[in-house]
Amino acid sequence: MCNNCDYTIHGAQHHFGWDNSRPPAQRVEPGATIRFECLDSSAGQLSPRSTVGDVAALDFGRINPVSGPIHVEGAMPGDALKVTIDSFHPQAQDGRGWGWTANIPGFGLLADQFTQPALTLWSFDPANPDSALFGKWGRVPLKPFAGTIGCAMAEPGAHSIVPPRRVGGNLDIRDLAAGSVLYLPVEVEGALFSIGDTHAAQGDGEVCGTAIESPMDAVVKLELVKDANLRFPRFTTAGPVTRHLDAKGYEVTTGIGPDLMSGARDAVAGMIDLLCARHGMAPEDAYMLVSTCGDLRISEIVDAPNWVVSFYFPRVVLE
Amino acid sequence: MCNNCDYTIHGAQHHFGWDNSRPPAQRVEPGATIRFECLDSSAGQLSPRSTVGDVAALDFGRINPVSGPIHVEGAMPGDALKVTIDSFHPQAQDGRGWGWTANIPGFGLLADQFTQPALTLWSFDPANPDSALFGKWGRVPLKPFAGTIGCAMAEPGAHSIVPPRRVGGNLDIRDLAAGSVLYLPVEVEGALFSIGDTHAAQGDGEVCGTAIESPMDAVVKLELVKDANLRFPRFTTAGPVTRHLDAKGYEVTTGIGPDLMSGARDAVAGMIDLLCARHGMAPEDAYMLVSTCGDLRISEIVDAPNWVVSFYFPRVVLE
Repeated sequence: MCNNCDYTIHGAQHHFGWDNSRPPAQRVEPGATIRFECLDSSAGQLSPRSTVGDVAALDFGRINPVSGPIHVEGAMPGDALKVTIDSFHPQAQDGRGWGWTANIPGFGLLADQFTQPALTLWSFDPANPDSALFGKWGRVPLKPFAGTIGCAMAEPGAHSIVPPRRVGGNLDIRDLAAGSVLYLPVEVEGALFSIGDTHAAQGDGEVCGTAIESPMDAVVKLELVKDANLRFPRFTTAGPVTRHLDAKGYEVTTGIGPDLMSGARDAVAGMIDLLCARHGMAPEDAYMLVSTCGDLRISEIVDAPNWVVSFYFPRVVLE
Repeated sequence: MCNNCDYTIHGAQHHFGWDNSRPPAQRVEPGATIRFECLDSSAGQLSPRSTVGDVAALDFGRINPVSGPIHVEGAMPGDALKVTIDSFHPQAQDGRGWGWTANIPGFGLLADQFTQPALTLWSFDPANPDSALFGKWGRVPLKPFAGTIGCAMAEPGAHSIVPPRRVGGNLDIRDLAAGSVLYLPVEVEGALFSIGDTHAAQGDGEVCGTAIESPMDAVVKLELVKDANLRFPRFTTAGPVTRHLDAKGYEVTTGIGPDLMSGARDAVAGMIDLLCARHGMAPEDAYMLVSTCGDLRISEIVDAPNWVVSFYFPRVVLE
């Protein structure tokens, strides 16, 4: 439900990949507020009753659906689409909000080290999605957002949904949560905005390749900034972004060297080792856990030839 | 002054670069608390009365001095040196704490775009270094820490102080502030710990190449963890790390593409453009400002082939 919405885009109105020839699901005037029913990123292939076998059997042709597209009247290439992110509402199943985190072989920052499928299921209060238990070990604070939010590209044809691009898409930016205002470059007439891949929580980096993947309704307002000529997306947050998880501080591991990607891999691997040694977790469990709440930061990028990438794990989760 | 310190290492007891044949400034038992007088990273070449001409004339043979080294009795390769960071005390000049931020040609993330020297001078309360004015535009929250903190390398000979390494060194990790506990790999007998490059504030990345470079006394306790066999430094923070600057949220720019370094450069350049357009700053002023308080984060590192690097600028600085 959305008392102030002008339109609802139903879950059936989803698509896979970006294609600017796709007919709009809806044409709207700038200023419209829209409720999008978003499927989870498996498009219903996984459920609260799934097992790890279902991860191995995933059909990648049906991954990461987005709801839309919305044609915004008057939007032209060079404009920015201003997306005011109002709220997220988990879709309950058997009265509970739910989500999944998986290690999908071949996908993720440490895919070479984690070759077997793994699955974590989460359950939370759909009316107040503030945290979810992680097995016997702890509790992950939640902050819902949409992992995929973007406009169609100018380039004709069908394009994979997986990579983000300058028009947005699979940005997986954890702070595109309620209250944030996102500005997306427009490349085609009407902008052709779509949204999906809703997450109940994710750390910066989404290191195992998945977050807490969770079907939710998303409410956003779409407006135009004419001739903004943005090069890349930018956004404004309404307030602090880490207060839901920073109260007890952080455990931090680092990776140091001449390549940022290697540094990120070393930092994340170091955190997995630390959590396994300290808490008796299996490595694949630690890998999935840190993907939902650990943050990759670049501490230093100027002291040539070595850079420092740090991985921040919020102590409140396990202490 | 330090009522609980066992030793004081004076500013004259500094060295340039790492060399494990350097005689220790002091031998201590594990558990010792030490006050280090740290020079600023110009080793006194810059002062509160410096001009941009002094930046152009900097002698790079005298950059980034560190105070020490400390030989910790019993420390052996494979151990970790546990560094409990107690406090930082700005060294006042004419009754004021002070610092400098410079664009040094050839140095910094956007060195190709910022080829001319530039200098910002800062002044703050040395007894309560909580913020410093940035010209007519705003106020940067302060959080003192040591940019360079590390042990001598196993490899013989003299090594540049500039790059950080697995034994630490010029880590420039903003959250190695009072209350944090750092664990450094030990590669040589005695560890040979040194510290310097004290900063009144810095954002994650230190993007222009300098922070608020400020002479301070640093008080730390040194202990040993035998046979820790750390691969890289790690640390624990005692509490939240961004509450001094997150109250009003953030402006965020992004860089998206297959290379994290390019993404970081795009995100920072986008923020400089935004601040210049909105506040009428000169680009070099914006570049120096964001180096002191803007944070580089890796939002997404798994949606091949494109990654998302985000640059977070705290709105409290200018609003």
